[in-house]
Amino acid sequence: MSKPKVLIIGSGGVGAISALSLTTTNKSEVTLVVRSDYDLIDKQGFSINSCTYGELKNWKPHHIARSVKDAQTQYGPFDYILLTTKNIPDGPITCEEIIQPAIKTGNEVIILLQNGLGIENPMVEAFPGHIVLSGVSLIGSTYIDGHVRNPGRDHVFLGDFKPESERLPGSAEKIEEFISIYQTPDNKNTIVLDTNVQKRRWEKLIYNSVFNVISALVELDNCRTQMTVQNDELIRPAMYEVIAIAKSEGIECDESLVDKYIHIGDGLFYVPSMGIDAHKGQLIELETILGNPMRIAKKNNVSTPILSTLYPLLKLVQFRLKEKRGMFTIDKNDFQGNSDVYPKVFAEKYGKH
Amino acid sequence: MSKPKVLIIGSGGVGAISALSLTTTNKSEVTLVVRSDYDLIDKQGFSINSCTYGELKNWKPHHIARSVKDAQTQYGPFDYILLTTKNIPDGPITCEEIIQPAIKTGNEVIILLQNGLGIENPMVEAFPGHIVLSGVSLIGSTYIDGHVRNPGRDHVFLGDFKPESERLPGSAEKIEEFISIYQTPDNKNTIVLDTNVQKRRWEKLIYNSVFNVISALVELDNCRTQMTVQNDELIRPAMYEVIAIAKSEGIECDESLVDKYIHIGDGLFYVPSMGIDAHKGQLIELETILGNPMRIAKKNNVSTPILSTLYPLLKLVQFRLKEKRGMFTIDKNDFQGNSDVYPKVFAEKYGKH
Repeated sequence: MSKPKVLIIGSGGVGAISALSLTTTNKSEVTLVVRSDYDLIDKQGFSINSCTYGELKNWKPHHIARSVKDAQTQYGPFDYILLTTKNIPDGPITCEEIIQPAIKTGNEVIILLQNGLGIENPMVEAFPGHIVLSGVSLIGSTYIDGHVRNPGRDHVFLGDFKPESERLPGSAEKIEEFISIYQTPDNKNTIVLDTNVQKRRWEKLIYNSVFNVISALVELDNCRTQMTVQNDELIRPAMYEVIAIAKSEGIECDESLVDKYIHIGDGLFYVPSMGIDAHKGQLIELETILGNPMRIAKKNNVSTPILSTLYPLLKLVQFRLKEKRGMFTIDKNDFQGNSDVYPKVFAEKYGKH
Repeated sequence: MSKPKVLIIGSGGVGAISALSLTTTNKSEVTLVVRSDYDLIDKQGFSINSCTYGELKNWKPHHIARSVKDAQTQYGPFDYILLTTKNIPDGPITCEEIIQPAIKTGNEVIILLQNGLGIENPMVEAFPGHIVLSGVSLIGSTYIDGHVRNPGRDHVFLGDFKPESERLPGSAEKIEEFISIYQTPDNKNTIVLDTNVQKRRWEKLIYNSVFNVISALVELDNCRTQMTVQNDELIRPAMYEVIAIAKSEGIECDESLVDKYIHIGDGLFYVPSMGIDAHKGQLIELETILGNPMRIAKKNNVSTPILSTLYPLLKLVQFRLKEKRGMFTIDKNDFQGNSDVYPKVFAEKYGKH
């Protein structure tokens, strides 16, 4: 039997190391889509500095492609589509639109190795019949201009996000197969089955919905934030709000994670990815990190005084980023009447943004 | 009897028009302290475009001075010290330190024509025995590089902020005198006695503690904010929190101001001053606009879920601005341990900031 074919979409810190893991085990044929930096990577490959894989120069997976469409034409069809891009449903292109050109046989297994909540259902709705798996990565890895800095070991939790009774046939076997082609024999990485991957997502949100969100607003690293505002004044109670929302869905997060996450960056002066994105003028993963949890809080009547203030503020930041990126151009004439109707006017005249 | 001498400290939009009002009536001898732009104003005066005073070129009051000390030496002592600077008690110099060089006879009347709450007591403590008056300006006026744009009529409410029983002798007469030298005969401006000027301050905070604060965080004009976030989602409930804090102090604000302020900028795409300051890298009037109200809310156990989230976020913005202005330089070695103690370490090693 021939090796399974894996398409990885997203060549940032997570995607590059996933490609490296899969290429290292060599139990699959790996195609990596490299969009903006295709020419750079095509010419000189990745330069990688990894805590587990060491120093690599001019490294490439089996194949790279400039677009999902090119990948499909040249190296498809694929058995697995591993999505490691940011998930910004309010951005110029949704994740469903991104993978569309790679859907060919109807048997592609879609793996969402992305942050945030509520990302699986839109994919299931767009591609019914496909097995959609949910992955949570705990890696520390950043990509800049061809260079991957990977100080935190690649650690993936993989599972079917649906309750057992609703899972498609073959789901368990596909998880098992993907784990077997991804896990390196010498434990350079770890990939394990997670039977409750939604809980894992909520637990990661305890960090992301608080530290990421605050950094996008104030553009400080976590240590500077923590020297200005007592952990108990803002960060800790906000984290407990995330736990309360999860609980309203029947998910009991490990509360010891609050202290763990509060102190995980002590002394490191680390800027969360959302803070970096906002600073660089990139759109932020607002709706999957904060918007979807807030909609659940509202549905279940959970009191979230801090997050309910952070969310509209972050919507304003996202608005500013979108406008600066030219996603819309405000005509002041459209906003001369009563400001109560501005959101309606905006939605009608400027589309989904 | 010779004319009273007035020293105006702060030559921004408010101070320049105050100087113009006083010089126009010509019932006092006016000295204006112009700090950073002294050479410019000394050479060519102010260029003023005013809704009531019209177009003026090369305009100057009776005297200008480069510093409070120079003003005192050359044109003092003064009967009135009118302070129109920003009030930033956590900045490099407090308002008490600013006016210190102008205190000579012990009879100077100090008038605080500034925004915010809790600004009078520090002045009374620094200069006991001096009459301290409190002024609220409703002017629309901005100063940039020698040019004053004054689209909103000069309207001042002036009063003694203390309860009647605690007022110093002569306070009422001084208010009356200042009004008489400030009010133009042809009603180009309006200055009136306000017997409850604290209420007026709280009412102005309904706007400033919300719109100013949000703009400093997200750097958008109010209309853009209002097209992204429903007025009822953030702005209106935040304004009601200000009203609730005032009420806990026995001050009943006019609640119709909420709607008035929400719609006062409809169609104008106006950026509040705090948003402009933050954008320009200037320190913001955080403690007088939001910090002091929050301390009252805490003392009186008022529930302020939105403002209690905004306040720490704004402290982070102020921190960022202070660091960028070189008010301190963080040594990362000081912040390597448990982040719970970072605020204490910061306070001890980096002083009051």
